[in-house]
Amino acid sequence: MRISGLSERTGLPVATLKYYLREGLVPPGRATSPNQARYDDTHVERVRLIRALTEVGGLDLATVDRVLSSIDGPDVERLGVLGSAQRALLGAEFVEYDPATADEPPTSRARDWVTRRGWQVDLHDPVLDALDRAWDACEASLVGFDEGKLGVYADAAERIAQIDVESVPPDPHAAVRQVVLGTVLVDALLVALRRLAQQHVAVSRHGDG
Amino acid sequence: MRISGLSERTGLPVATLKYYLREGLVPPGRATSPNQARYDDTHVERVRLIRALTEVGGLDLATVDRVLSSIDGPDVERLGVLGSAQRALLGAEFVEYDPATADEPPTSRARDWVTRRGWQVDLHDPVLDALDRAWDACEASLVGFDEGKLGVYADAAERIAQIDVESVPPDPHAAVRQVVLGTVLVDALLVALRRLAQQHVAVSRHGDG
Repeated sequence: MRISGLSERTGLPVATLKYYLREGLVPPGRATSPNQARYDDTHVERVRLIRALTEVGGLDLATVDRVLSSIDGPDVERLGVLGSAQRALLGAEFVEYDPATADEPPTSRARDWVTRRGWQVDLHDPVLDALDRAWDACEASLVGFDEGKLGVYADAAERIAQIDVESVPPDPHAAVRQVVLGTVLVDALLVALRRLAQQHVAVSRHGDG
Repeated sequence: MRISGLSERTGLPVATLKYYLREGLVPPGRATSPNQARYDDTHVERVRLIRALTEVGGLDLATVDRVLSSIDGPDVERLGVLGSAQRALLGAEFVEYDPATADEPPTSRARDWVTRRGWQVDLHDPVLDALDRAWDACEASLVGFDEGKLGVYADAAERIAQIDVESVPPDPHAAVRQVVLGTVLVDALLVALRRLAQQHVAVSRHGDG
């Protein structure tokens, strides 16, 4: 199909598609003349993926670029599928992090807590700093937030992670794709489900709409 | 304290604090001369809250403004605490929505699904459109995503919502504050916990780091 057909199939204006092509987010089509190219279903799928990541996942185009590179990249086995996928979402500086040459991990309340809980995670992971910040903010701002409540949230997160990890395919490239997209898209799904479940639980308990 | 003291206590530059004061995000101090004012602990708490909402919750200042207005506002009982708090996070257009005068709700797959599940939620709620979009995107992009998997995610969301709702204080103003902050800050907490739980579950299952 021509770029106008790609526009029809994906619902995005031709100008936006040309921008994605210039930025390398979408691979070039097969050139049929100096000014024309043909696109196929792989282009449709790629554009839909970019739409999902931006519109559902709320990612900016720079992050989409990193995510797509991690899906396409050849180096997925080196760092482990989950680590490389999660780092692609966090930022370029973490993609280069190599556990083999890293220093002693920093100490923090979140690191103590995951160790006590028995979670086998990389203590260098910057997600632990995000957990420290979120924990501090919850404790400072919310009535009755304590480590017990954090533990119940962590139980629910573990349940969610079991479903996440269950469906990861064995092939490393397919696995990275699944983990990256699952992380972004299921975050959006969980946010919506949590809002709805809150309404339902509040109505069931207090009987007010 | 002077504005320099407020800066020390909150870790934000004086220029940023002056911007928040001009924008009305922080209430004015008590004027001691035409060019000077005194601030107290309520100002420290407000600035820390803005930091938590922007830095931990990832909100932009326009959304922070809406969230703070919903915490401070007098109209919290009219729409119900959860609804008004959730709408403050979604956008100004939804704050004005009044269930009493609304038309028939639209139909969609997410609306059918919550009805079958027995969740008592407002079928006009735009969160259901967000759920439709996230569901479509997960189905199109993820291996093995189906309604069964959505159901297990929903079970986890219900568990989380029970903890959320348990600690909501009875006073409506305190309740809105708790729900709004809990929604934003616990979303950030859950994202971090899910990433860590994924690593732990993956390591436990496959034995690779």
